[in-house]
Amino acid sequence: MKRLEDKILAEGLALSETILKVDSFINHQVDPILMYEIGQDFADHFKNSGITKVLTIESSGIAPAVFTAMALNVPMIILKKQTSKILKDHILQTNITSFTKGTSYELTLSKDYVSDADTVLIIDDFLANGEAAMGAIRLAEAAGAKIAGVGILIEKAFQNGRQRIISAGYHVYSQARVSKLGKDIIEFTDAD
Amino acid sequence: MKRLEDKILAEGLALSETILKVDSFINHQVDPILMYEIGQDFADHFKNSGITKVLTIESSGIAPAVFTAMALNVPMIILKKQTSKILKDHILQTNITSFTKGTSYELTLSKDYVSDADTVLIIDDFLANGEAAMGAIRLAEAAGAKIAGVGILIEKAFQNGRQRIISAGYHVYSQARVSKLGKDIIEFTDAD
Repeated sequence: MKRLEDKILAEGLALSETILKVDSFINHQVDPILMYEIGQDFADHFKNSGITKVLTIESSGIAPAVFTAMALNVPMIILKKQTSKILKDHILQTNITSFTKGTSYELTLSKDYVSDADTVLIIDDFLANGEAAMGAIRLAEAAGAKIAGVGILIEKAFQNGRQRIISAGYHVYSQARVSKLGKDIIEFTDAD
Repeated sequence: MKRLEDKILAEGLALSETILKVDSFINHQVDPILMYEIGQDFADHFKNSGITKVLTIESSGIAPAVFTAMALNVPMIILKKQTSKILKDHILQTNITSFTKGTSYELTLSKDYVSDADTVLIIDDFLANGEAAMGAIRLAEAAGAKIAGVGILIEKAFQNGRQRIISAGYHVYSQARVSKLGKDIIEFTDAD
């Protein structure tokens, strides 16, 4: 998605060979028009997938996911990050370890909102090693849903997240695929 | 806002005299069309306030805030909940204690995105005792901004949040004002 790549080149900050800061339009300050366009692009890509729910992980995925859900005319579900296990019949949880941040949390979904009648699209802002996306897939499948695919704003194509998700049998669509980061360097790739 | 009141009556769950659960359309599953309408309503109410930024608190405020920001054609800023103090020149923090949840966090704003040239609207899903809203006001003022007001989806009118914000000299607009909660009871008030 050229518009997102252009924005990343204009405002993204490559802090190291692995860290890309996009606080000015995605993670802290958010550009609503860009989020609307991102939602339209995801909806267009997945329009024939029979999606009934859009799932995302709090909190940076919410803005793009809610516009995607609106464009597809389906509800959005926010998978919550809980610090501890909740033991209730209608609650599903799976443990996620963020290697980037060195933290761990319980990704949480209520069975009230996803069932075996659903086909879900998972939206997240970043794809690195695929921990969060694979956790969201585990939760949706535990609730009985089919997975239409994973939609990502910014993929770190030099990490193994895409390979991991594809190897597990799921579709990944990334709007911007960053192949290289470094001081004053942000490069993209189109290749799978 | 009648549409929000109707949705609360149809799907809200009064779990006690103080707890209203709206997980099916605001806090866990999100209705994008309702969020769009909520954004239009806030933008209409505050259209003559010269707003340059919409601020919200992660994560349930993000969906309504991003639609409000789009309707006002301004950026949205997500105030982050950090577990510990960050000591950096361009970071502002203020401590918030949630009496409902019995937790405490550092509400965080980068000075990069709010300055004395800004007039901000603060959006949040619930108003109870006003802790979070007052914290957001403190941060925005510390960055030099003027406060256009506070926009709330659901106000617990039987708690003191509105009084606290008004006494401090700020405007509050709530789309639904709940005056009473109890078993099978959800009542609204229009009175200030």
